[in-house]
Amino acid sequence: MSRLVMKFGGTSVADLERIRRVARLVAAEIEAGHQVAVVVSAMAGKTNELVAWTDGAGAAAQGIDPSDDEYDVVVASGEQVTAGLLAMTLRNMGLRAKSWLGWQVPILTDEAHGKARIDEIPPEKLSAALDAGEVAVVAGFQGVTRDGRIATLGRGGSDTSAVAIAASLGAACDIYTDVDGVYTTDPRIESKARKLAKVSYEEMLEMASLGAKVLQTRSVELAMAYHVPVRVLSSFVEPGEAPGQGTIVCDEEEIVEKRIVSGVAYSRDEAKISLFGLPDHPGVSSTIFGALADANVNVDMIVQSHARTADTANMEFTVGRRDAQRAVEIIRAVQPQVGFEDVRVDEDVAKVSVIGVGMRSHAGVAKSMFKALADKGVNIQVISTSEIKISVLIDAAYTELAVRALHAAYGLDQL
Amino acid sequence: MSRLVMKFGGTSVADLERIRRVARLVAAEIEAGHQVAVVVSAMAGKTNELVAWTDGAGAAAQGIDPSDDEYDVVVASGEQVTAGLLAMTLRNMGLRAKSWLGWQVPILTDEAHGKARIDEIPPEKLSAALDAGEVAVVAGFQGVTRDGRIATLGRGGSDTSAVAIAASLGAACDIYTDVDGVYTTDPRIESKARKLAKVSYEEMLEMASLGAKVLQTRSVELAMAYHVPVRVLSSFVEPGEAPGQGTIVCDEEEIVEKRIVSGVAYSRDEAKISLFGLPDHPGVSSTIFGALADANVNVDMIVQSHARTADTANMEFTVGRRDAQRAVEIIRAVQPQVGFEDVRVDEDVAKVSVIGVGMRSHAGVAKSMFKALADKGVNIQVISTSEIKISVLIDAAYTELAVRALHAAYGLDQL
Repeated sequence: MSRLVMKFGGTSVADLERIRRVARLVAAEIEAGHQVAVVVSAMAGKTNELVAWTDGAGAAAQGIDPSDDEYDVVVASGEQVTAGLLAMTLRNMGLRAKSWLGWQVPILTDEAHGKARIDEIPPEKLSAALDAGEVAVVAGFQGVTRDGRIATLGRGGSDTSAVAIAASLGAACDIYTDVDGVYTTDPRIESKARKLAKVSYEEMLEMASLGAKVLQTRSVELAMAYHVPVRVLSSFVEPGEAPGQGTIVCDEEEIVEKRIVSGVAYSRDEAKISLFGLPDHPGVSSTIFGALADANVNVDMIVQSHARTADTANMEFTVGRRDAQRAVEIIRAVQPQVGFEDVRVDEDVAKVSVIGVGMRSHAGVAKSMFKALADKGVNIQVISTSEIKISVLIDAAYTELAVRALHAAYGLDQL
Repeated sequence: MSRLVMKFGGTSVADLERIRRVARLVAAEIEAGHQVAVVVSAMAGKTNELVAWTDGAGAAAQGIDPSDDEYDVVVASGEQVTAGLLAMTLRNMGLRAKSWLGWQVPILTDEAHGKARIDEIPPEKLSAALDAGEVAVVAGFQGVTRDGRIATLGRGGSDTSAVAIAASLGAACDIYTDVDGVYTTDPRIESKARKLAKVSYEEMLEMASLGAKVLQTRSVELAMAYHVPVRVLSSFVEPGEAPGQGTIVCDEEEIVEKRIVSGVAYSRDEAKISLFGLPDHPGVSSTIFGALADANVNVDMIVQSHARTADTANMEFTVGRRDAQRAVEIIRAVQPQVGFEDVRVDEDVAKVSVIGVGMRSHAGVAKSMFKALADKGVNIQVISTSEIKISVLIDAAYTELAVRALHAAYGLDQL
């Protein structure tokens, strides 16, 4: 009997009516002969309410760190409520069901409260429950440390819970969300965007980290590591209606017809930092990026160029927009040591990327990209590439234009 | 070093400002040299919200019982939130603190989900935390069954949690509430009501079960069984202000100056059921009260009298008002078997009681009661007595008049 983990996010369990809808989707999978574990998030809005309370309790701080493990105690209660309510609803539909909290499974994590990583999920108890014909309703986003304290996995952690449980149970994993699959690009920008039937883990990883917020990055990494077949599909179906096929996220080898480019992603959460008049000698980059790394600022695209005068260089790089001002302060602090002339920050930028495993074996992808952008008069500020992705930084005002031009250039509207 | 359990109800932790007030009261006791465990309820209103959701989840019922253990999973989350928030607040004030959920202590209960009884609280873990200088913030109202499922103790259960933990730790127990002690009667009815410095467990039990809702009955029984000194006092004090002495609930022997009557209690949650024309032969009462007991209807006062005609009797008894209609239906169902003539229900009644351990050794208490009521023209419908209590059922319209008359008759305004 095949095993299935079904995961439902906050908007899919936002109220009792939606929880009943979820219960019907679960019942349909049981009917179809699956053993089912369900992973649920907190009802939409609940986590924010709980986090606001912990902020308030932390506001009395007199220089003492807010205690992350107590934050977890408060915030994990949201998923607990949903798990109990869904188990009740399933029982009321005549199914056998039981809720499972992180400490009951147990979902063992490290001690990094608030952003814990799952160490291990002993499968015995959940397995036994499934074999006994019960639906296991697991509270997502939470686990327990080895010394018995509640730990949460950080935002989006329920996806990770679901994939980790699927790996532990040898199950497939269906992630129900408010979209019906993974698209070639954001349909709000390009109405010709198409749903992908299949996408590889690596492509999905690039898409997730590039701002296509369908799946949390960590959950995709985990799925790739344990070869868990993941499917993304919509929970917003009417009673009696099937949820459609969604998009399957799987190993590259399982995708027979490989596309050169699978999708166009974009992110507006970027800021570009420019350094002018850097002395051109070894150790400069290491001082600057060392200081940023020490302060936990993530640097993404980097480009260095020689200035017109022979003995100095300019450098540009991007950081997350919310880190921009802090990054500038850090850089100013090392100015005496490094000796550059000026630093500027530009928050009016966007990153647009084309992604596809086919790039590995096809030349000319970058050329088509630059040509398509040039034809529309889009100026490229910074370029970065990986094996299966090319990203460019552009003026934010051109984001939609660039996305649509690239979507057409690779024929993604004709899949 | 003496140990203290401090318990705070829902109104005392209703928002972050009140939680900070609670934290200051805790800090003062630490300052005074106590080891402190704090037991908290859910923030006021939260339990009702959670219960409403479980009702909603149960509303889909197709004849299957709502699952009480899942109800507990949902509802216990309320106290979890408060425990985490208070622990954070205490830490932010510079104290060492940690939250403890039912399963972490553990507070072991039976399997009666929704109204579980505490079986055992192994003191080792909490004791070690207190000895290590930590404030233990315990989620009230909840425990865990021996097979690892969350169980709640029922409404008011946090009082019981607090007393049971105090018993387990060899601690005294301070119950902080929205009143500053136990009064000779309800101050909203009699402005001359006085706060009692001490009251015995047995008196408190009678008061609690008679509608003076300061302490939950089960918690008083437990305090009496384990000789836990309990103090009732107000959490509604301004910053810097001491919470006053409150009322100490203790063994009768510790009360030096015994009063004949300690207080006057009343309850409007009563209904009187009258049966007319009962055949006067053995087995009739047993049939009627057996049927009520089978349906879990609690019967309180009972009086039987012979009717004018020699071969039939009339009977009157009281039940909780919310059970009244159900009780009548049950009685009508046994009418063919019992053969009475008529049944009537009167919901317009109140029970007024005088309570005092001094009654054991003093005659004439009942006589003064009946005289005081007669002087004011209050008609007595039913009487019941225990060793330390006399209750009368009267027309509800006379409740306040009767309470004030009795308060004066026993000199309670001159304590």
